[in-house]
Parts: sequence; structure tokens; C-alpha cells
Amino acid sequence: MSVVIQKINRAKPEVVNELGACGVATVHEAQERKGLMAPYMSPIYAGARVGASAVTVLVPPGDNWMIHVAVEQVTPGDILVVATTSPSDAGYFGELLACSLQARGCRGLVIDAGVRDVRELTEMGFPVWSKVVHAQGTVKKTLGSVNVPVVCADALVQPGDVIVADDDGVCVVSSEDAGNILQKAQARIASEDEKRRRLAAGELGLDMYEMRERLEQCGLKYV
Amino acid sequence: MSVVIQKINRAKPEVVNELGACGVATVHEAQERKGLMAPYMSPIYAGARVGASAVTVLVPPGDNWMIHVAVEQVTPGDILVVATTSPSDAGYFGELLACSLQARGCRGLVIDAGVRDVRELTEMGFPVWSKVVHAQGTVKKTLGSVNVPVVCADALVQPGDVIVADDDGVCVVSSEDAGNILQKAQARIASEDEKRRRLAAGELGLDMYEMRERLEQCGLKYV
Amino acid sequence: MSVVIQKINRAKPEVVNELGACGVATVHEAQERKGLMAPYMSPIYAGARVGASAVTVLVPPGDNWMIHVAVEQVTPGDILVVATTSPSDAGYFGELLACSLQARGCRGLVIDAGVRDVRELTEMGFPVWSKVVHAQGTVKKTLGSVNVPVVCADALVQPGDVIVADDDGVCVVSSEDAGNILQKAQARIASEDEKRRRLAAGELGLDMYEMRERLEQCGLKYV
Amino acid sequence: MSVVIQKINRAKPEVVNELGACGVATVHEAQERKGLMAPYMSPIYAGARVGASAVTVLVPPGDNWMIHVAVEQVTPGDILVVATTSPSDAGYFGELLACSLQARGCRGLVIDAGVRDVRELTEMGFPVWSKVVHAQGTVKKTLGSVNVPVVCADALVQPGDVIVADDDGVCVVSSEDAGNILQKAQARIASEDEKRRRLAAGELGLDMYEMRERLEQCGLKYV
Amino acid sequence: MSVVIQKINRAKPEVVNELGACGVATVHEAQERKGLMAPYMSPIYAGARVGASAVTVLVPPGDNWMIHVAVEQVTPGDILVVATTSPSDAGYFGELLACSLQARGCRGLVIDAGVRDVRELTEMGFPVWSKVVHAQGTVKKTLGSVNVPVVCADALVQPGDVIVADDDGVCVVSSEDAGNILQKAQARIASEDEKRRRLAAGELGLDMYEMRERLEQCGLKYV
Amino acid sequence: MSVVIQKINRAKPEVVNELGACGVATVHEAQERKGLMAPYMSPIYAGARVGASAVTVLVPPGDNWMIHVAVEQVTPGDILVVATTSPSDAGYFGELLACSLQARGCRGLVIDAGVRDVRELTEMGFPVWSKVVHAQGTVKKTLGSVNVPVVCADALVQPGDVIVADDDGVCVVSSEDAGNILQKAQARIASEDEKRRRLAAGELGLDMYEMRERLEQCGLKYV
Repeated sequence: MSVVIQKINRAKPEVVNELGACGVATVHEAQERKGLMAPYMSPIYAGARVGASAVTVLVPPGDNWMIHVAVEQVTPGDILVVATTSPSDAGYFGELLACSLQARGCRGLVIDAGVRDVRELTEMGFPVWSKVVHAQGTVKKTLGSVNVPVVCADALVQPGDVIVADDDGVCVVSSEDAGNILQKAQARIASEDEKRRRLAAGELGLDMYEMRERLEQCGLKYV
Repeated sequence: MSVVIQKINRAKPEVVNELGACGVATVHEAQERKGLMAPYMSPIYAGARVGASAVTVLVPPGDNWMIHVAVEQVTPGDILVVATTSPSDAGYFGELLACSLQARGCRGLVIDAGVRDVRELTEMGFPVWSKVVHAQGTVKKTLGSVNVPVVCADALVQPGDVIVADDDGVCVVSSEDAGNILQKAQARIASEDEKRRRLAAGELGLDMYEMRERLEQCGLKYV
Repeated sequence: MSVVIQKINRAKPEVVNELGACGVATVHEAQERKGLMAPYMSPIYAGARVGASAVTVLVPPGDNWMIHVAVEQVTPGDILVVATTSPSDAGYFGELLACSLQARGCRGLVIDAGVRDVRELTEMGFPVWSKVVHAQGTVKKTLGSVNVPVVCADALVQPGDVIVADDDGVCVVSSEDAGNILQKAQARIASEDEKRRRLAAGELGLDMYEMRERLEQCGLKYV
Repeated sequence: MSVVIQKINRAKPEVVNELGACGVATVHEAQERKGLMAPYMSPIYAGARVGASAVTVLVPPGDNWMIHVAVEQVTPGDILVVATTSPSDAGYFGELLACSLQARGCRGLVIDAGVRDVRELTEMGFPVWSKVVHAQGTVKKTLGSVNVPVVCADALVQPGDVIVADDDGVCVVSSEDAGNILQKAQARIASEDEKRRRLAAGELGLDMYEMRERLEQCGLKYV
Repeated sequence: MSVVIQKINRAKPEVVNELGACGVATVHEAQERKGLMAPYMSPIYAGARVGASAVTVLVPPGDNWMIHVAVEQVTPGDILVVATTSPSDAGYFGELLACSLQARGCRGLVIDAGVRDVRELTEMGFPVWSKVVHAQGTVKKTLGSVNVPVVCADALVQPGDVIVADDDGVCVVSSEDAGNILQKAQARIASEDEKRRRLAAGELGLDMYEMRERLEQCGLKYV
Repeated sequence: MSVVIQKINRAKPEVVNELGACGVATVHEAQERKGLMAPYMSPIYAGARVGASAVTVLVPPGDNWMIHVAVEQVTPGDILVVATTSPSDAGYFGELLACSLQARGCRGLVIDAGVRDVRELTEMGFPVWSKVVHAQGTVKKTLGSVNVPVVCADALVQPGDVIVADDDGVCVVSSEDAGNILQKAQARIASEDEKRRRLAAGELGLDMYEMRERLEQCGLKYV
């Protein structure tokens, strides 16, 4: 059955934004190494970093009709997360859809398939994380669903979940846990600032983390 | 048998140039989604966009001798399209060959194999679309052919065909159809300008493309 | 047995530096096409080129403890070369380790596994050549070794070997042969300067390399 | 948090068995093409076909400790479904674990990672669907969970779901829907028997499925 | 435009059959190493070897409608060669289609995409060479063409070409050249019989092929 | 420089044979998880298991001349281990070479490249572990070396090393350590016999390995 679920639970905007500022690696660690998408998900240009709420789209292979349907469900601060019902490398998404999404305040696209118009998307500053760049067009013949749970690049995404994406990839945080994970992520950052200062001053991690004794117990030999 | 075919039929220069300006995604759509090379063909640097006439080269695995032969067949506005008789990841092409080709007015290289000297090629502004970056050298021992039909990255290329290449990949247009395809591509661009304006103003594709009724007929439910 | 070998034989600093300046493709040719790592080893940002002495690290899958141990063995002008005892895509390395290494004069990282914090590493100017970008964290539970011979991305690396890395990939030169290989590489560069000048002036490689007669003997036909 | 959920909801044994007999392609179609694992999941030997209830295991990369924990949760008619918290190709599973599982009535293993002892598993008739065959050993140091929802090879698996696996791959059916899907699958099989008879007698699908008129309307030309 | 070309030029049946008996490696060598499909094309079961005339089918991604159209064009001794207009891993083909093709004397299928019902196809003795085994279903919504030239797994196939396929892969021979290539292939086989006898008796290839002098001239040293 | 080293140090024949009987997974564990080749190395047919002494061959991409040279260096009980100087998928090896090797008592082939004549090799019972099956032919133009150290599928192989290969892959044991590793492997097998008996009788690994307390200490919860 093909459905569009119109009401989803998003995390608070400031939590979403601040999770985005923490970055993928930190957020992934803060939630005990869960929720990371597969490493084949790459940004089409370097330097983008976003936090946003997921509007999920489940599409058939080679058919982008439902993305048009999903645009209407986007509110400012959202990101589209597109998964396919079976693997596809087709280019589901290009400049015109980005133009429409950007007009609605959408922060980007995460798609477990192909994207095209990379040059135009880069000029627009519309970030995309995708499996592949592929100009191959799609059709508009078969329905899918909007705002149902999807498996995207090995990660389960519920509509409204927080998506954090940057040059390191894409991480998913459940909307209920978002506040809690943000606290942990910010605590990590605070503790890393101090460590960074000490390491930059030449202190060794071996000493700072007090690893020497345990290494010796494990049997490490210096020769 | 190894041959060099010296006379090939190119499309008119202004048609070639304007097809290049249309870009890969548009040209691919304009010719009914044919002629696209496999998505593993990537540019070595972002932002290049060319239209050019194909001088084709068929080379043995790990042997770049015929590329030297092909250089002589290049005229201004051409692009070299290199296919292998069996798959190879070797680095067939580097700065010196690019220097020679650039001196002859060549606009770039499309190679279903490896390339090297990426830094120098980037500085020269000589665009390359390749399967892989690989410094691995090649030999000069076995013949191939120049300006025969080749299968390059899943696409059939006849000598003289128009090659359109940009950040989205590489597309082939037959030299006879080039004028016709250009008209269709330019018509697409004209129609997209109007759509882009409306979408940017907030109109939904659902309305602009009149999709709502057909979606309902197909059984889409809003909940 | 897990060991840290504290004394290794490096090549002379000026030889290491000048090999780096020659670049991967030239050095690879100069040593008769040996020592090249697999082409999946990519730089995290374009434009870096280094020559450095290898401090090798052998790590278990998904465990980066030994990288912390290896930092202490680094002296200015070194590069860390990390191989795994079995294949892993985990993100072994990020900004804090880079901060510590940079404080010790380390010139970069070559890792046959994953890296994270790509944005921060790029901002720091700390170059990394890796198999994949992956935020996936690692543990610190199992020992490995430092400064033992390792197989990294298909290449054998002895501690102290010279690593040359740039946009084309990574090449290994044995520390004993480094002086000899440098001479050959510089001779290549000298001879290429002259060739480049002639090719840029429009001379054909077919003539400059005197290939026409041999091509005809091999049976090449012009039609 | 690491948990072992001891009570899960399985479908009725006869439903599980009969779904297995229907085979992957039929079940996948019967549930509207959902629930199929990625095609890289291959059987270690040809000819096995099972229906079984999933006991799910979530394991860290390169660590098979939780599989030992999961064995205790298996009852006759179950199958182990192992997913990793991040991608791994290690060989988590071999003959001794199979021996223990077989003693408990387990029907096989589905693992989104590596397996070893292929020869012995084949001789035992213990079927395995895996991403790779790899002798690489694992450690027993880090916890995971048993009978939590997992994403295995792109498919979401809830504990107790019905797993259907054969030479075509692996398909997941929710335990609540199992009876309903079985009816649809058996209806497909009944209708295919009649079609098979007519096609084998030489009737064309074009006629049997009444496709000719629609093909003509779509513009198909015979020349 | 979508067309079905009803008349194609096949090679003589006895030539087709005997080319099949020669096997892929021999035929590939006999025609100077052309026409080989990419090595990812694997048989679904070991031991099949066929020679047959190609009925080509060009299909959209994820849509197998045209295979139903193509069945009608098959005559005894043919093989279906299916290429996609853009890459797809979907399972286009299964038991019912095989049943229909077998009733028409079809010798097998070569498909640059996925296949399913592997167990049933194996039991029927209907050989398939495919890119992947995948149960993922397809739709019947978009036209393609039958008996047009196609690029299948990197090889150009004209309708009526001879397909030779066995455990080593798939090779294409142009229908016009088939008689000529058969002669060369049979001459190879005759010469190999004698070589096999001598090698099995312990004679070295170094002596039989008179390689020693040329190896020495090239600089080979025995130490 | 191209050399053939004629004298190599093999382990004792009975040690080689018995290591083969232990199998890859056991030997790999016995030597602390070193020496395993990459998992892409697959047997061309199921069920072979060998122990043999390595005669190593280093070959250029797409050139099998040195394999002919290597045949002469083979003595009964050896296996050929072929590595390439740069990656290649060509089919270096087929039936005639196997015929020659079998006449000299060679036990099989391990090749980090392609093989062909799979059907004939299977009938002859000549086992091959390779990266790919590919009919693509090679040339005989460029030298390599025999019995030099090689990196084959990520593993370092010294001439004379013991190769253990079966359905799980390929493992390398240094000839000096072979006796020692055999003892450890046989001790593993002895201890596994007892474990297998207990597990088959229904005892749980959790109890047999006394894991319950440590699991609880690590925080595992049963719910």
C-alpha cells in the first residue's frame, strides 16, 4: 500500500541544528556507534555539514515520482532521505527538484541511489549525499510511500529522525533521543578541546590516556 | 588487423559546441536516454564541461602505444576516446601526452582505464574522464586501432560522434543525429527555465505537472 | 608477538624530500614500476604531495590502539603507514591523532582502512591517503606491532622506507635504494622537460620517439 | 546497552515451513516485493531451501562473542540472523558453532559478514547465506545484543520474523503477516502451474497475458 | 523508437553448433581476442557449454516486458541476449519464461542483469549467464526493442551473431565471420592435441615453444 | 632485473602434507591469524584441499611468459603462486599449462589474476584459486621473475613457503615455521574433537567456555 504520512515527530529545531554542528563522527560516538550509514554515501561537494529532520521517501527502482509527492511534506529545516525498494543506481534527482526543495527551506538530500546535475547543485549550495553520480533518468509510473520507516544505506530511518551529514558521511539520531545525544556529543567536544590543546603541545596520548601500563600487561615489547 | 582510419565524419563545430553547453543530463534526456557511459567514469577535477568530436582509440590491456598514433589524427575540437580490448586499470595517460594533445587543439580525454599525473593535468586545465586514477605505467609493444567503433564504458562510440562530458559523466551522440538532438536539448532547456522560475517561487511540482489526479487513481493515500 | 621496534633506518632527509618533489608517477617509473600501492588508495583532499620516511603500524581489524603507540616513534619528516592484519573499513584515525602527529613533525598518514574527520584534517593541512572515508569508530583492546614489515594496499613496506604520495596514489622506495632511485627520477624529469617543450611546440611523439618504422613493421595500416 | 531478549513471537511452525517451501522469489512477489536482502548474500552450497524463524544477533565488527550467547536462545525451527554494527568481512562462524546450533534444531545461518569451514558445513548439511567466505578469525571481547531488530543486508529483521532462503537469496516476512503472505504465495503457485503447462505446450506469453494490444498502443513497431 | 526486427541473419546451424563445441577460450583466441564479455558474467550452474544464434533484447532498467515480446522471435538453436538501457541488478528472468523459451528450442539466456529461480532453472537444464542472481521482481510498463544491436557486458552483439558460452564466460562471433572463425578455432584445437600429448609426457613448454634463446636475449638470468 | 632463482628452501614433505590436511581456518588460527590471502581468492571448484610448497612467479600485467619459465622449477609437491606487478584480470592460465604442471607433480595454482579453461581444469582435478575466471588471453613479451618474494592477494609469499588452500581460501606458512605451526594446528584439532562431541551432545558454549560470568561483568542483561 502506498501512503503519505503527513504528520511526523521532529526533534526541537535548536537540537537539530546543534547536532548538525557537532558533526558525524562525534554524534556517532555519542550514541554508542549506532546509526551510521554505509561509507559509500558520499557528498557531491566537500565542506557541507548539516543537521536536519528526515522526511523519508521510499521509491521503486528507477522511478522518482514519489520524490515529487514528498516535496509537499517538507517544512523548513528538513532533509529528504530517499531509499529504494530494491537497489538502483539511476539518477533520481537533479536541479529542478533541488530548486523546489530549496524554496521550501529544505537543507539537502540523502539518497541511496544516484543524483545528477552535480555542477548546478554545487553552484546552488544544495548538498547531496548519494551512492553514485549518474545522469541516467528515471520514470514516473509507480507509487512508493512518504514518511514510512526506511532502510537507507544500511541504516534504519524513522520519519522525523535527525540526520547529521558532513564529509565523513551520514548518521541518524532518533528524534526522541536527540536531546540526550546532543548532551553527550557536546560533552565529548568539551573534553576533546582540552585533549587537543595538550596533544598540540606535544604531550603523548600514551601518557594522557595512561595507556602504558595496560600495554605492558597485554605483553607489548619494546626492542 | 590494426588500422588507422584517417577520415571520419564529424558534426558541425557549432553543433558540437552547443551540445557541450547543454550538459550531459540534458543531452541524455534529449536523445531518449541513450548513449550514457557507465557511472564509474569520473572527471579528475570538478567543473569541466566539454562538447567535442570523438577520435576513438582501441588499445590492448596495459599498452598505450596506439595513443601516440592517435594524437596525429586529432584536429582542433576533438576529444580522445580510449577503450581497451580487455579491461585494464593501468595508467595509460599522463602529462606529456596531454601536452601534445593540447598543442593540437584537443579538448580532453575519455578513457575506460587509468590516468596519472592528475595534479599536472589539473593545472593544465586538460579534463579527463576515467575509470580510475593509477600511476601504473604501460608498455608500447602491441598494436590496436584508431578511429574504429569502440565500446567504451558500456557505450558504443563511432569515430566522429559527439562526446558531451561534465561532472555528471559522459554521453555519446551520433554525428548524424547531432543537429536533431541539439534542437531537442535546447527545447528542454527553454522549457526548464520557466519551470525553474515557478518552482523557485514556491509552486509545487504536484500542481505544475498536474500529478494529483493520477496519483489518486493509482491509489495513493494521505493519512 | 607484539613488538615496537624503536630504531629504524631512514634515508637521508634531503633524498626523502627530493623524492617527494618528483611525484609518484616519476618515482614509480624510475624504480622500474615497482612499489605502487593499489589504486583504491585516495587522498582525502587534492593537491598534497609528500616524501617522508615510513613508521609502519600493523593493527588488528577495528582496533586503533597501536596507532597511539606508534605516535611516540615518529620523528620529524616521518609518515605513518598503517596496515591491518585483516581487511577493515573502520575509521581508525581522526583529528586528535592528527593533532598529536603534527606536533611531532609527522607529514601525513597512509592507511589501508578508513579515516574520519575529513573536514578538520583538510583544514589542518594534514594529508591522508586511505581506502575509504568512514566515521565508524574503533576500539583499543588488542595489540599489534610498530615498525615491522607490513603489506599495505598490495605493497610491501619496510620501516624507514621512503613513501612518495600525491594525487596519483602512493609509492614505496626502499631506504637503501632511495639515493639511486632519486638520481634516476631526476634524470627522467630532466629528459621530460625537453620532450614537453617539443611536444608543446607541436612536434609529434610519433616522430620524436621515432615510432613510425616500427609501427609499420608490426603491420599497422593507414586507410 | 547490550540485551538478550528471551521471548520472541514466532509464526506458526506449519506456516514457517510452508513459506520455506514456496521459495524466495514467490514469497518476495507475494508480499509486494518487500523484504529481500541484498543480492550479495549467497548460499555456501547450491540446493538448500529453508523456512525458519529468526533469532537475531547484533555483533560488533570482528567479534563473534554474541553468537555464542545467541545459541542458547535458539529453539527447533529457528535460524540465526547475524548483522554487524558496522560492516565486516571477518569469518564469524564455523563448524563448531554449527555443530552446537544443529544440536538445538537450528536450520541455518544468515550473516551479513563472513563464514569459514565451508567444506565441513557443506558435509554437515548446515546451510549458510553470507556476504563472503573468509577464514579470518574474530575475537570475543565486546558485547552486542540478541533478539533486537537488526538491519541485515539492507533488510529490516525483527526477532521471530520468518526467513525464507534458497539459491535466489534471502527474504524476510513479518511474523504477523506470515499467514496472510503464505496464502498469497500459494495462490501464485497455483496460478503458475496452469501457466507453466500452457507455456510448455508452446503458447506465447504475448497471447496468454493478452499483451499485444497494449504493446501496440505504447507504440511498438514490428519491421 | 521501439522496434521488433523480425528477420535476422543467422550463421549456418552446423557452424553455430561446432563453434559452441570449441568453447569460449578457443573461439576468443581464434578471433584475435575480440568479442569477450566482461568476466562478471557467470553461469548459474557449472558445466554448460552452448553455441547459439543471438536474439537480442534491449530492456529498460527493472522492466522485463520486452523479454515476453522477444520469445516470439526465437527459433530453435537461438539464445536470448538481454542488455539494459542503463545498469540494473533486478531479476528480469525466471522459470516461467525459461519454460516458454525451452518450448521454442531456445538454448539459454545471456543477461547483463539479474536472474532468479536458479534452482528451477538448474533442474530444467536451462543455462543462464548473468551479472547477478537476484529475486527482485520487475515491472511491465516501458518498451524496449528486439533484434537491434546491443552492448551487453562490454561486448557489441548484433542480432544473429553466434554466442559461445561456457564456464569461462561468453564470447560473441559475428555471423558473417562465423565460418572463418570456426576453421581457425578447429585448427587451434588440432594443434593443441599434439601439444597436450607432449606436455603430458613431460616435455617443457620452454623447449617445445623454443623460448630459451629469446628469454636469454631479453636478459633473463638464472641464479 | 629478471631472475629465476633455482634453489629454494622447502619445508619437509610430511609437514607440508599434514598442514594441508589441517585446512586453512585451523592453520590460520594456529599461526595467530597471519598469512591469509584476501577473500576474493576463490577455488574454481568446491572440495579441493592442498598443502604444497610455493614456487613463486612475478608476472607483468597481461603477460604469462614467466609461467612457462616457472614450470621448469617445479618439483613434485609444489604449487605455483602467481602475483602480478600491477593488478590484472587477464586469463593467464589454462589447460595446457595445467597439463604440463601436472606432469611434473604440481598440486595446483594460486593466482592473483584470472584463469580460463575452468571446465577442463575441473575434469583434470587440477585445483586453482584465483581472483576471477576470465577467458581473456595474455601475451609473451615481457619478463618477470621466478622464486622471488611476492605479494599475492595481500599476503607476502617467500619461495618455498607452505601454501594451504581449500574452500575457505589460501593461507601462507613460512617454511621455517612450518613444523612449529603444524604442532599448534594439530593441537587445535585435537582440542576441537572433544569440544565438537560435547556441543553435539547439546552442551552450550556459554557453559563449556565458562563465559557467563564475564558476560555479566561486561554488563549483558537478559530481559
